[in-house]
Amino acid sequence: MAHKYDKVFRGTAFTSRTPQEVTVLDDHLFCLDAEGVIRRILGPDDPDYDRLVAAYSGTASFLSLAEGQYFLPGFIDLHIHAPQWAQAGTAMDIPLHDWLETYTFPLESKFSDLDFARKVYQDLVVTLLANGTTTALYFATVHKEASYLLAQICADKGQRGLVGKVVMDDREQNPEYYRDESTEVALADTESFIQLVQELDKTTKQGVYPVVTPRFIPSCTDEALAGLGELAKKYNTHIQSHCSESDWEHNYVRERMQKSDTFALHEMGLLQDKAVMAHAVFLSDEDADLFAETGTAIAHCPISNVFFSNGVLPAARFTAMGIDIGLGTDISGGFSPSLFDNIRQAVISSRMLEEGVDPSLPSTERGLPQSRITANEAFYYATAGGGQSLSLPIGRLEENYAWDVQVIDVNAPNAKLPLFDEGISREDLLHKILFLSRPENIREVWVQGDCVHKRK
Amino acid sequence: MAHKYDKVFRGTAFTSRTPQEVTVLDDHLFCLDAEGVIRRILGPDDPDYDRLVAAYSGTASFLSLAEGQYFLPGFIDLHIHAPQWAQAGTAMDIPLHDWLETYTFPLESKFSDLDFARKVYQDLVVTLLANGTTTALYFATVHKEASYLLAQICADKGQRGLVGKVVMDDREQNPEYYRDESTEVALADTESFIQLVQELDKTTKQGVYPVVTPRFIPSCTDEALAGLGELAKKYNTHIQSHCSESDWEHNYVRERMQKSDTFALHEMGLLQDKAVMAHAVFLSDEDADLFAETGTAIAHCPISNVFFSNGVLPAARFTAMGIDIGLGTDISGGFSPSLFDNIRQAVISSRMLEEGVDPSLPSTERGLPQSRITANEAFYYATAGGGQSLSLPIGRLEENYAWDVQVIDVNAPNAKLPLFDEGISREDLLHKILFLSRPENIREVWVQGDCVHKRK
Ligand SMILES: [Zn+2]
Ligand SMILES: [Zn+2]
Repeated sequence: MAHKYDKVFRGTAFTSRTPQEVTVLDDHLFCLDAEGVIRRILGPDDPDYDRLVAAYSGTASFLSLAEGQYFLPGFIDLHIHAPQWAQAGTAMDIPLHDWLETYTFPLESKFSDLDFARKVYQDLVVTLLANGTTTALYFATVHKEASYLLAQICADKGQRGLVGKVVMDDREQNPEYYRDESTEVALADTESFIQLVQELDKTTKQGVYPVVTPRFIPSCTDEALAGLGELAKKYNTHIQSHCSESDWEHNYVRERMQKSDTFALHEMGLLQDKAVMAHAVFLSDEDADLFAETGTAIAHCPISNVFFSNGVLPAARFTAMGIDIGLGTDISGGFSPSLFDNIRQAVISSRMLEEGVDPSLPSTERGLPQSRITANEAFYYATAGGGQSLSLPIGRLEENYAWDVQVIDVNAPNAKLPLFDEGISREDLLHKILFLSRPENIREVWVQGDCVHKRK
Repeated sequence: MAHKYDKVFRGTAFTSRTPQEVTVLDDHLFCLDAEGVIRRILGPDDPDYDRLVAAYSGTASFLSLAEGQYFLPGFIDLHIHAPQWAQAGTAMDIPLHDWLETYTFPLESKFSDLDFARKVYQDLVVTLLANGTTTALYFATVHKEASYLLAQICADKGQRGLVGKVVMDDREQNPEYYRDESTEVALADTESFIQLVQELDKTTKQGVYPVVTPRFIPSCTDEALAGLGELAKKYNTHIQSHCSESDWEHNYVRERMQKSDTFALHEMGLLQDKAVMAHAVFLSDEDADLFAETGTAIAHCPISNVFFSNGVLPAARFTAMGIDIGLGTDISGGFSPSLFDNIRQAVISSRMLEEGVDPSLPSTERGLPQSRITANEAFYYATAGGGQSLSLPIGRLEENYAWDVQVIDVNAPNAKLPLFDEGISREDLLHKILFLSRPENIREVWVQGDCVHKRK
């Protein structure tokens, strides 16, 4: 009998059904086609199960998990500044505006040097894969060549990379040593970058995508913003930017535009189903409605927000309003390349929003009731929510989704999780994985049906 | 020439000078006596340096760090419930009181079974050592035998363990299946536990110590509390308990005792220089003054506080008032066994206290100014602050301190830190280590001059 499937995986998997509910697929089979797409999922009760196991087991196409191993969807990092990987873990003690001028712009300007860029970007992509991140939505730098290099590295390493050449053309707001030469050049470079990456995409299995990327309104002229909206439309690309991140940024836009970040971005054609805005901490109800209406997603970056946002995203409320939310590391506003760390901080921050922080206040005045999210919801943001935000068939282990997974081993050498109760519920087990896994527990990572990371 | 020192280590070390300042000892020699105590530290400029290197290098007594490796003091976990390791990472979604009744007391009651206790405790001690924790102040359970077993395991594995048999004798507040049989039995068991562990201590190099451990006021009768205060005095032991952890606990004590937790504990003889109280989030200024006066330390447990404390410890303010503060994981109120994770969360929580959390409030009403602590301060809490809290010569790399260290490798395979700038300052390097290290970066751990954990 000719084999119908390219690969068949056998094991127990966790995947989100809704933001609140996780489905456990116990000892299921996952059957892939040659494109790395899941064509069929079946459980032990399915009449074809034993036949498929018999047909594939023992062949190179069959991979069965060991005891203590589990499939999780690969994580989707919905907001990360690739060049800032070089300064991750430092300089988190100053406000956003100074941080950009003093540390970040000087660092990013170095990416005109392709050798330096290659060193940082290769290390970052490999690190993200080792942390279970199968898809990343990247800000690169203002430089077209180095941004393209990042897309090439994603293509090479097998990561699904969505990459933006950053636009920052405003001559008053950006330093002379680090900005687009002019509005025209910014738009021309973006257009040719889009074309290059769309060509590159055709050579990859997993996909690499160009992203229209105004840094944020303060760094762009109106002409650039409007021009970028048109380019996104013309080439049907993703869009990313920052929106209502901090008091300073939020108020700057309101003063310049006489409207909120959200409405200003919308006017420029920058809110749509494939648009992702980072942070969005200070959205008003009207702003939030506009996100929901346009299908614009929020990249929630809970670690970064602690250092640069002056507040916590009301994620529970925005999810209830129907806004798509995914998780971002926001390297290096956030120090950690791990979405596991960001899942933990998303839960933590939501609890702190709910409970409040200042013990000198009476408990009734301290927090914002009903703000907490559960571990299940944070897991959803890191996986299915990210996929939905990008309008790509990723982030779920379902038929017609890409086989993007991480294999978690709870018995990994030197990193055994504390499991002493054989009757532990599947949900508790998932929570132990989410709260306690280290990179060592991620034994394998697969993107679009190919293994891209493996630990011995 | 006979060798004067038992061991000589060569490498670069970080150690706290004050809560705010870190000293960098570049390429220094650390000379140990046979008891594992640092007898001499000297830098390359010292006239004896070359002579010592020549005398020891090439011998089995000489250990020199490789490029990219650094000494950090071993961490001191100032508050951890050893039995709760079994449930770490689960059940964080309910209030303290219910959490105790529904999950924690049933779990802890299982430690009457010594086989189960051995399994959990061995795994925990090994895990903590692998996370760089060289000293831990443990709550065990109400059971004398299992608590003693924990002390034995620390003695065997080479960890400096301070262990408390938990007292919870109040018949109304504790379930029948899990409490001391009576106040008399609680005190008698504590006394014989103290004697046993003080005997055991004599057989160890690094020290194991008995700790007088009333769980917290709500679980103890007045007689037990007063009796424990006397036992601590009689045997000159450490003391630990919980104090003003949450709204519920804080208010319970005020109603029963007509005074705050702090003043009630003081009346029972439970505040003193070797006393450590967990949490202390809701201390009034008067309470805080009494901590400072009596030399009582706070075990700050920033991850746990998110889930069970309804507020953030004003650590910066209490440090300025002269209170000793160390860091605790509070397994399993906190999910992580790592003090690196708790260093990160201590910084994060302090920032959130300073900035506030609710973006719908004006920025001027959102937070509590000047609440932030730096990474240096969190590092101090995890090391020197912990040592000072316990009144033991640990937590600093100074002469007459124990050689308790972790060797951090920033180039560890699979866990290389993002270092691309050769001119990086030592302080930035330390911050990268603090924010980005994984257990994989901890290559060796030493306690009292002996290697207790090593990765290949
Ligand atoms: Zn960003
Ligand atoms: Zn505790």
